Amino acid sequence: MTILSFFSRASRSFNGYPATSKLLLLCTLSSGGLLAYAESQDISPPSAEIHEKDGVKKRVLVLGTGWGGTSFLKDLDISSYDVQVVSPRNYFAFTPLLPSVTCGTVEARSIVEPVRNIIKKRNGEIKFYEAECLKIDPANNKVLCRSTVDNLVGNTEFSLEYDYLVIAVGAQVNTFNTPGVLENCHFLKEVEDAQRIRRTVIDCFEKAVLPGLSEEERRINLHFVIVGGGPTGVEFAAELHDFIQEDLVKLYPMVKDLVKITVIQSGDHILNMFDERISAFAEQKFSRDGIQVQTGCRVVSVSDKEIAMKLKSTGEVCSVPHGLVIWSTGVGTRPVVREFMDQIGQANRRVLATNEWLRVKGCENAYALGDCATIEQRKIMEDIATIFKAADKDNSGILTLEEFQGVIDDILVRYPQVELYLKSHHLKDVSDLWKDPKGMDRNEVDIEGFKLALSHVDSQMKSLPATAQVAAQQGSYLSKCFNRRHQCENNPEGPRRFRGTGRHQFLPFRYKHFGQFAPLGGEQAAAELPGDWVSIGHSSQWLWYSVYASKQVSWRTRVLVVSDWARRFVFGRDSSRI
Amino acid sequence: MTILSFFSRASRSFNGYPATSKLLLLCTLSSGGLLAYAESQDISPPSAEIHEKDGVKKRVLVLGTGWGGTSFLKDLDISSYDVQVVSPRNYFAFTPLLPSVTCGTVEARSIVEPVRNIIKKRNGEIKFYEAECLKIDPANNKVLCRSTVDNLVGNTEFSLEYDYLVIAVGAQVNTFNTPGVLENCHFLKEVEDAQRIRRTVIDCFEKAVLPGLSEEERRINLHFVIVGGGPTGVEFAAELHDFIQEDLVKLYPMVKDLVKITVIQSGDHILNMFDERISAFAEQKFSRDGIQVQTGCRVVSVSDKEIAMKLKSTGEVCSVPHGLVIWSTGVGTRPVVREFMDQIGQANRRVLATNEWLRVKGCENAYALGDCATIEQRKIMEDIATIFKAADKDNSGILTLEEFQGVIDDILVRYPQVELYLKSHHLKDVSDLWKDPKGMDRNEVDIEGFKLALSHVDSQMKSLPATAQVAAQQGSYLSKCFNRRHQCENNPEGPRRFRGTGRHQFLPFRYKHFGQFAPLGGEQAAAELPGDWVSIGHSSQWLWYSVYASKQVSWRTRVLVVSDWARRFVFGRDSSRI
Repeated sequence: MTILSFFSRASRSFNGYPATSKLLLLCTLSSGGLLAYAESQDISPPSAEIHEKDGVKKRVLVLGTGWGGTSFLKDLDISSYDVQVVSPRNYFAFTPLLPSVTCGTVEARSIVEPVRNIIKKRNGEIKFYEAECLKIDPANNKVLCRSTVDNLVGNTEFSLEYDYLVIAVGAQVNTFNTPGVLENCHFLKEVEDAQRIRRTVIDCFEKAVLPGLSEEERRINLHFVIVGGGPTGVEFAAELHDFIQEDLVKLYPMVKDLVKITVIQSGDHILNMFDERISAFAEQKFSRDGIQVQTGCRVVSVSDKEIAMKLKSTGEVCSVPHGLVIWSTGVGTRPVVREFMDQIGQANRRVLATNEWLRVKGCENAYALGDCATIEQRKIMEDIATIFKAADKDNSGILTLEEFQGVIDDILVRYPQVELYLKSHHLKDVSDLWKDPKGMDRNEVDIEGFKLALSHVDSQMKSLPATAQVAAQQGSYLSKCFNRRHQCENNPEGPRRFRGTGRHQFLPFRYKHFGQFAPLGGEQAAAELPGDWVSIGHSSQWLWYSVYASKQVSWRTRVLVVSDWARRFVFGRDSSRI
Repeated sequence: MTILSFFSRASRSFNGYPATSKLLLLCTLSSGGLLAYAESQDISPPSAEIHEKDGVKKRVLVLGTGWGGTSFLKDLDISSYDVQVVSPRNYFAFTPLLPSVTCGTVEARSIVEPVRNIIKKRNGEIKFYEAECLKIDPANNKVLCRSTVDNLVGNTEFSLEYDYLVIAVGAQVNTFNTPGVLENCHFLKEVEDAQRIRRTVIDCFEKAVLPGLSEEERRINLHFVIVGGGPTGVEFAAELHDFIQEDLVKLYPMVKDLVKITVIQSGDHILNMFDERISAFAEQKFSRDGIQVQTGCRVVSVSDKEIAMKLKSTGEVCSVPHGLVIWSTGVGTRPVVREFMDQIGQANRRVLATNEWLRVKGCENAYALGDCATIEQRKIMEDIATIFKAADKDNSGILTLEEFQGVIDDILVRYPQVELYLKSHHLKDVSDLWKDPKGMDRNEVDIEGFKLALSHVDSQMKSLPATAQVAAQQGSYLSKCFNRRHQCENNPEGPRRFRGTGRHQFLPFRYKHFGQFAPLGGEQAAAELPGDWVSIGHSSQWLWYSVYASKQVSWRTRVLVVSDWARRFVFGRDSSRI
């Protein structure tokens, strides 16, 4: 019984003393050369009863359990809120590893963690409902939901009331109204999508080796097309190439020369949001690997057998037969968010807009974060007269450098584009903006001079990318605001209001870019790190392994993902069609 | 780069020197206390071309890649045959672990191994086609198949010719024509079934905790019904109970008292094919665990909300609402086998019949094994006159003990029921059968005395159970016959033909029972081992772990299954709905 007792002890130790177990696992992982950090969170047993709504606590309703919703819930102090969560999926998925799931480098189960596991670790209780949000009713502070399970007894629809609503439902695929895309393409947004792609790749191979097919038919079935040359599309192409070359050709040797992978990109280069060294390296590597990259091409329609595209340069339309098409470009607004926008006066916008504090424009008690919303940054030129007036303390019509220095900090916090402008123009100090057209220092400016000095600053405003990193930071930021709501009501910590009086309650959300990876296959990756540092090659791939292992949401998924990688090194990827 | 090189080395070592790697893994596993044995098979690279059919070699076509088909292929010497395999699944599944997959104790991926992986390790080439067999045409030695993939280019139907056909397609679920079973029950035959059950169990919990349901509705959704008290049904009930008590109650504490598991059994006891000590222990354990066992009950219909059953004792019919019904009783004949039976004159039989050499009755060049067929054992009383005549060398009409001893060995081989009869009556020797009604030894008998002596022997004939163990032994037996076909044509090794001249070419198939397990949950199992040895408790569970780990078809699945068990001990089972 030694083994039994060993396991029971291990199990008890993990449940009772998280710190011990984490140390143990840290050692285990470190010996595998992976950096991993431990999140220290106390695990307290969940309360056993459904408590009645506490009348005193404000009710927070969170829609969605993706990066935004989960990171909000992870840090929220729920002792002062009554929290409910609604999501059609009862798990959080580590979406950056979805391309790995498509080819079995990592198993689907290894990148998901039940939401209930994440929230039960908190002091207090969060209620989770697996349901889809059908309609937001901001006038009555209500949300209508429908359960995703419809073959069991009991109502499938129910509504929930809230005081604060946090919308983190993510985006849906954007087909740009291209005919046939929804019916005939695969997507890479959900775990189920990745599992479906994995089965379909195997289907293509199994079909291609059946007797009675012409060589042309085998070729068509083994033509994999990826639309979109962004990080997801490129990573999938690289993964698929590795899967085929490292594993499938051994099992299907008779068709190994008939396989073709094509990446279709509307721009002139793939990975065009990255540094151009990375973009060029990726194109060269793909060309060596035999992955065809078709740039300057727009897809005009997709049928079950063919994909039609238009060459931008010549306007020529050509049609290519395919076995599988992955559509990995563009994000669109979900219907529930679209309808919500109609109700709050955002009908004409493309994406739900929030202010810099993530508060939805036109709806006081609603917040939105992640891919479903965009922050509408305020232009400094719109407020330039008010800022001048506020800074010009003696109302002289002339702003001195001393007077300006009194508002610089508030300007830097309120208008982050100023800092970006300084950085991009290699200016050390805001006062450098004041130099006159000849480059000479000035001690004072009038309103026209002030406008001129700041006139180009707004050009640095850009919207944040639709990435996990942004959503996670927004969730974390918002939970901090919620945690400090009472504290900051009396002692606001934000910048001064130039258009009003007093200060903003909170500091506005500021995104910190920690870099971005693009795995390129063959154990090589490209990394764009802060400070314009670019790293390409095997070492970046190991950095990628370390970062992705450390960023896992739980120790369970961390261990599983790392052991999946090890399994792949030793045994290869599995090609069973399940 | 040390880590990279470590992994590459490990990977190279595994691919290049299987023996080394197996030793390494053996050490790793042994330290976990698990017995594991190494299969020594040389891995040779598959040939890269599709060879044209060799006119000289006989063509063997295998239908199915379950236990029977795979074990046949594993041992077949394919240097003398041209082998083709057709199966709707491109993997072999370790079906005894399916109940573990339903609750996530083991992952689905861990119990499957691609057929191509299994067959590529052989010298020579086996062609595999992922397709369903639609029709067997024994008159023309052809089989019609249809690909399971229908959305890609190329014909989906094709036909294959054979010289020998090996039918190992398994059985399908038998609903005994109970209305509503096919539409409303879950089954446990395929990997997909197990995955679906896992999702549905989570659905039931997620639905039960939604707002707006009455307590009665929550109770109904959490009522899990298992029809069939055989090893599969009982193991699933035990797994489900453990899953709920060890993992789900922590995540769904508000409904933990509303869960109910019911096992419906038509017989008087569950596990009634086991020793009655096991059956009684299982019933007591289930009663302690709160699993309701309803014996003497026949299900008369199943709807999406209710299951109706008839109490055999009173004839009373009652209806019980349910959240999930698992139907795990009975095996039925697949349509393709049924149609084949019609063509070969077996239309009136319930199951496809073979002789003791697994050759299909009425079809010379077809063999059948596993759950899709049954061996029709020959009765000794049908041949009694011929045996007497063959043994009575001097044609005296009287058989002496010496004359009888000349045919004893052949009788024992040809009629295995004789040995079973001796064993069950505690007789040491065949000559003990000769004793006269008063128990006195005799030296000679006439034909009537001979008939009387053997008259009860046929009562020991029984058909083999539909288990993996039987199918695997049959596959292995048949491959040995195929391997020795030429050798045994001139030197037959079978028993003498009493009804003809000469000897049978091969020894008939003889099943060796290595025992059977019934895991009962809570780390306890019951084991029935050879020699009527019964073992119940924790130690049997560890024996179960050892045996199931050692019986895995590949080192990949062995490592995965063992690590799944370890993961479950440490982290519990995952409840994400994927």
